[in-house]
Amino acid sequence: MAKFDLMRRLTLNTGGKILLLVMDGVGGLPREQGGPTELEAAHTPNLDRLAAEGSLGLSIPVARGIAPGSGPAHLALFGYDPLVYEIGRGVLEATGIGLEVDPGDVAIRGNFCTVDADGLITDRRAGRISTEEGAKRIELLKQISLPGVKIDIEIAKEYRFAMVLRGAGLNGAIADTDPQATGVPPLPVQALDPAAEKTAELVTQWLAEAKKVLKGHEPANMCTLRGFAEEPGLPKYSDVYKLKAACVAVYPMYKGVARLVGMDVIQTTAHDTTADEFNKVAEIWEDYDFVFCHIKYTDSRGEDGDFDAKVEVIEGVDQALPILTALNPDVMIVTGDHSTPATYKAHSWHPVPTLLWAPATHMTDRATAYGERECMTGALGHFQATDLMPLGLAHAKRLTKYGA
Amino acid sequence: MAKFDLMRRLTLNTGGKILLLVMDGVGGLPREQGGPTELEAAHTPNLDRLAAEGSLGLSIPVARGIAPGSGPAHLALFGYDPLVYEIGRGVLEATGIGLEVDPGDVAIRGNFCTVDADGLITDRRAGRISTEEGAKRIELLKQISLPGVKIDIEIAKEYRFAMVLRGAGLNGAIADTDPQATGVPPLPVQALDPAAEKTAELVTQWLAEAKKVLKGHEPANMCTLRGFAEEPGLPKYSDVYKLKAACVAVYPMYKGVARLVGMDVIQTTAHDTTADEFNKVAEIWEDYDFVFCHIKYTDSRGEDGDFDAKVEVIEGVDQALPILTALNPDVMIVTGDHSTPATYKAHSWHPVPTLLWAPATHMTDRATAYGERECMTGALGHFQATDLMPLGLAHAKRLTKYGA
Repeated sequence: MAKFDLMRRLTLNTGGKILLLVMDGVGGLPREQGGPTELEAAHTPNLDRLAAEGSLGLSIPVARGIAPGSGPAHLALFGYDPLVYEIGRGVLEATGIGLEVDPGDVAIRGNFCTVDADGLITDRRAGRISTEEGAKRIELLKQISLPGVKIDIEIAKEYRFAMVLRGAGLNGAIADTDPQATGVPPLPVQALDPAAEKTAELVTQWLAEAKKVLKGHEPANMCTLRGFAEEPGLPKYSDVYKLKAACVAVYPMYKGVARLVGMDVIQTTAHDTTADEFNKVAEIWEDYDFVFCHIKYTDSRGEDGDFDAKVEVIEGVDQALPILTALNPDVMIVTGDHSTPATYKAHSWHPVPTLLWAPATHMTDRATAYGERECMTGALGHFQATDLMPLGLAHAKRLTKYGA
Repeated sequence: MAKFDLMRRLTLNTGGKILLLVMDGVGGLPREQGGPTELEAAHTPNLDRLAAEGSLGLSIPVARGIAPGSGPAHLALFGYDPLVYEIGRGVLEATGIGLEVDPGDVAIRGNFCTVDADGLITDRRAGRISTEEGAKRIELLKQISLPGVKIDIEIAKEYRFAMVLRGAGLNGAIADTDPQATGVPPLPVQALDPAAEKTAELVTQWLAEAKKVLKGHEPANMCTLRGFAEEPGLPKYSDVYKLKAACVAVYPMYKGVARLVGMDVIQTTAHDTTADEFNKVAEIWEDYDFVFCHIKYTDSRGEDGDFDAKVEVIEGVDQALPILTALNPDVMIVTGDHSTPATYKAHSWHPVPTLLWAPATHMTDRATAYGERECMTGALGHFQATDLMPLGLAHAKRLTKYGA
């Protein structure tokens, strides 16, 4: 039986409340042989109390050895096998910069490029112009309109932007126009399915207009489009898990993925601190069965390669944690979407330290603190990240028995 | 390669003997924070000796977070993925009360109900009559005969009964007649497949007779039929494992599942003690390659929520264990089909403490006793229950190498 059919069959719409706290990239590595990881070096009395009482384990985001991006890693935490459910690149880029993508929309990634007088590409990245320069050109592109289509377009970073087309009868089965080479013109817009012919014509029209408005704005005097994708139609939390779910996150990408699985996205600002986020969770706690709270900066400091700064972020989370524990969740899960060891300065494949605390149902193990090596001894063992939701639901008494 | 194809290819019909001792629902939880589980609290010197010598691990019955019923949980222990091999409800109910179900038979669950003068259902459970009252009405139903069909029918509990139709050309693709509502008549018998038309006609005939013989026997003056199912045609132990296998159990349900996978079911009585069962194992030991021995009362006391009584059952098993160890099995496995923590009073999803002892081949780990937290440290790690049979066969030297 397919996993979500099993979930639909077994989930109850009664039971306990679940709080999922994700510290992005929380897993780490020792800085020196025999030394502690970031998580082990951090002073985290609140997390350690939960760890001593509850069950620890190590979560495998996608498969052993696979370092995931944030999109697939969060899909896995939410219970969706990222090797089965792929979010198209256009949708990831668009949601990543805060553009909403709804069913029927087509999301696209764009690159500014440089073309010569003959229309041949001389630089596929337009000299890697600054984000400010990119944003100026986005204002020009915003002037373009298409019949029967609403266009949302925003700069992502430097020469990269994202665009969402909204309207009736759109279809994302369209090939990239980026030829992946210089000395040639951008590829014509090509429908990969007859149903996408109309959309391909509209995009052709848009690119012709783009060429006109960008003319003279060298080095970014043209653009290519890639990763055409529709809203992925993921099964929704309310359907598969019978959960009313909300997301508290500050980065658009995480809000975007949460929205795609049917969570309500709570209003936040980019300046919200961890404590601000936790207070938002507290404000909405009564209204939801499940709250996903996302902390970004563990990952950012790992990517920076700043071991000490990552330790500080973790300690900050621990200090603010009483705001969450005061809510008395029936199930509290603390984990990461993947590891981002400061020594590695990038997402890695190392399994992610995970803490499951559910006083009415958890199995206490011998682990006494929240850290990589304690997690190796825990009650949960090594498990696939996609198993986290069934575990959370079970511990919240929201799953009935399978078979008689 | 499908798992059973692999087994057929690699299994040998020579090698050691395997004893599988299942303490139903043996896994538990601490009664208080920091305290022992039922298994850890029990004084079990014999099991602990096997644990110290052999390999420990934790078995996942179906999937993480999923609490299984006894049917699927035993299928998994026997090596059959319970998400692939489902035993129909009618077959489980029939085997559960000791009715044999053979290939070609159709097994059915029945409910007594109350109908008014117009034939509309007023109570779907006939006022939950006592088992005695139900049994009296079963005697009336036993008078009904159908052309070319042998009918076995027995009371299950209160208003529930099971029935097996035996004869040529029967087919179980028939919809429930229980409308799941009152104020309406039972649904007409409907074939879900043209091949089941004849069976549907016979069942319609039977129900018309049932209405006549139950008339005036309010509140159980009619019945509905559900869960029509055929013998599931599971691959047999002799075929996939090349094992001559036997089952020693006191509850009909476990005998039934064992029979469905091709084990010989050894005669027992409902009053047999653990020692009686172990002596039965000893009596037949010479005649079989594999013996499955099932102890029910660990689960029963867990369901009762009686921690101390469950500890006592476990201690009783340990005291009788020398009867089994004296047989010098090449492989002895001690496990449960699932966990039934006394604090939870129900089957749970927690992985099941498992002990594999095979002095010629086992890997000794650092665990020194048979209990949940020792099993977390063991040589077997966390594993799917369906892997237990391949592990047992391997340790018995009954599996050849895969590939050159």
